[in-house]
Amino acid sequence: MPAPTRSPPNSRVDCIFCQIIAGRASAEVVARSDRAVAFLTIGPLTEGHTLVVPVRHATDLTEVSNQDTQAVWQLVHDVGGRLHAAGLAEGVNLFVMSGVAAEQAILHLHIHVVPRRRGDGLDLNRWWESKVRKVDPARHAEVARKIRSSGAPVG
Amino acid sequence: MPAPTRSPPNSRVDCIFCQIIAGRASAEVVARSDRAVAFLTIGPLTEGHTLVVPVRHATDLTEVSNQDTQAVWQLVHDVGGRLHAAGLAEGVNLFVMSGVAAEQAILHLHIHVVPRRRGDGLDLNRWWESKVRKVDPARHAEVARKIRSSGAPVG
Repeated sequence: MPAPTRSPPNSRVDCIFCQIIAGRASAEVVARSDRAVAFLTIGPLTEGHTLVVPVRHATDLTEVSNQDTQAVWQLVHDVGGRLHAAGLAEGVNLFVMSGVAAEQAILHLHIHVVPRRRGDGLDLNRWWESKVRKVDPARHAEVARKIRSSGAPVG
Repeated sequence: MPAPTRSPPNSRVDCIFCQIIAGRASAEVVARSDRAVAFLTIGPLTEGHTLVVPVRHATDLTEVSNQDTQAVWQLVHDVGGRLHAAGLAEGVNLFVMSGVAAEQAILHLHIHVVPRRRGDGLDLNRWWESKVRKVDPARHAEVARKIRSSGAPVG
């Protein structure tokens, strides 16, 4: 594993994740690449719950560069593989809160990688099912049209 | 937007997402690329809740190829941009359930892109905070060592 990256150019002194990346705040770092770092959260949903963050400060998905995005997802997949290999996961949940409106608390983009085991009691679906909305077919089609006509086509 | 991709080689007749991709089941497709398709879920948490799936059937994150992974995340970012541009999102949550142990129901990998607006009442953090565990520092360090020593180093 390469040595910790010290203070990338846009490191924020008031950002706890920038401080961890720069080695000025302590964390249990579990994996890293040139552009991304993975460390255990101190508020885990399950044992081994890891955060993957870009080295260069970006608030959320709307701010992060394409190159950093690729590096972050690559490290997410690497961490998932490690959690399985370490016997901590039989499956994983990924969570991202991007933007204050999406209940993001720490404003440095982070991907939650949550190892899951059968019977671990997290019971995400109980919450999920309580939140699912009924769909009005006409409104559904209208929303789809709005999304299709927004932004450049891909591929 | 290119025409729908018809039945990639590993399409599964018993998989609803493979059927949607092949155009044999209906869905409100909102974006696609050569390797990934995005469509509205019929069980949305919020209006505009979209699923992004690889065209080639892969059960979960442990099965999907690197190339398809990149395509899926690229389309996730594209959809996020569209949701913002369409005025449906002030932020987004991403969710992945990978593996039955992680409460995955439909066994074709899918990324949930959930548009969020302030005051939309989804209140993910209330559930989340109810599930956060206390950390034992010695155990925390031991878990980190396990993850670090599992899998090949990246970068």
